[in-house]
Amino acid sequence: MNKTGLLSAALLTAAFAMPAAAQLSVEDQIEARKAAYQFMSWNMGKIKAQAVDGGVEFNADQMKAAANAIAAVANSGMGALFSPDSTMDKADDTRLKPEFFQQPEKAREVGMNFGREANKLQEVAASGDRAALARQFSAVGETCKACHDSFRAD
Amino acid sequence: MNKTGLLSAALLTAAFAMPAAAQLSVEDQIEARKAAYQFMSWNMGKIKAQAVDGGVEFNADQMKAAANAIAAVANSGMGALFSPDSTMDKADDTRLKPEFFQQPEKAREVGMNFGREANKLQEVAASGDRAALARQFSAVGETCKACHDSFRAD
Ligand code: HEC
Ligand code: HEC
Repeated sequence: MNKTGLLSAALLTAAFAMPAAAQLSVEDQIEARKAAYQFMSWNMGKIKAQAVDGGVEFNADQMKAAANAIAAVANSGMGALFSPDSTMDKADDTRLKPEFFQQPEKAREVGMNFGREANKLQEVAASGDRAALARQFSAVGETCKACHDSFRAD
Repeated sequence: MNKTGLLSAALLTAAFAMPAAAQLSVEDQIEARKAAYQFMSWNMGKIKAQAVDGGVEFNADQMKAAANAIAAVANSGMGALFSPDSTMDKADDTRLKPEFFQQPEKAREVGMNFGREANKLQEVAASGDRAALARQFSAVGETCKACHDSFRAD
């Protein structure tokens, strides 16, 4: 191997040795992912109250902020919070089913559907159209439910 | 009072009778605000690892997503999660000090400082400048700490 080859190999090794994310303990992963979902749930509740049920006066700025929050969670890289040893058969205080790792295609699909609809929610909220927001709220809600039905214990 | 006056008064009453946000129980307020802070803490941790400590390879897209998440929380209207009956002398599972309502000027100030620095974090992360991000991480962290020092029990 010539000098350049050696150098490249060393750089590559260094690059791969560097973890893609700070290594969180299983407990911290579980705490962070539950927090992320709870925080989204609060924001979904605001959209439901103002755009769907109408019990609360529609405020386009608040809807935009709520949708931004949901999209920001969806785009935050939550995959890092799901390690194979963080399922409910191996860890405490979690309802993540082992199926999440046994059906990786399905897990990827529900995750991608959620990400797509959450980002669309942000766009729709920016438009200020209440009826469209109510419809997109349902579309997002269905992606939450799809994941829970497959991968969250009751 | 003429007809216009009567109408305006009725509209005003209707506007004020409609709550600004769906009324959450104290328990739900506490759950949502703790979740919001935990979620921010996870995202601050990513910025610390990549931009400050450097133990994790710098990834500008991940830094942008983390800063967006923190700003989205800051802009989400968390004030709605702090009712006077949700302090630790009156409610369970919370560390919110009653001082939060006894020093409203101070509470508003720490909250506004945090909001300003979190939004600046989002701008700085978008620039991709790692050193600037490390500095702004510290600026945000100081505003977290300022609030905790005054209003969160140990
Ligand atoms: C990709 C899968 C997935 C998607 C998408 C998803 N969830 Fe979940 N959710 C889960 C799993 C898994 C758990 C259980 C987490 C645990 O216990 O570790 C959970 C837990 C929750 C919890 C309870 C958190 C706690 O404190 O125990 C709430 C509330 C929730 N999700 C709401 C939502 C909402 C609202 C959405 C959409 C806006 C959503 N979820 C989208 C998988 C998902
Ligand atoms: C305006 C005040 C304020 C600001 C700003 C603030 N916090 Fe807090 N934080 C609190 C209070 C009050 C609590 C206690 C909440 C409770 O127990 O009800 C708390 C709780 C927390 C918790 C523990 C949550 C739990 O599960 O008990 C963490 C972690 C946290 N904050 C991190 C942060 C980070 C990181 C930032 C900044 C990026 C931040 N906080 C900004 C007031 C603030």
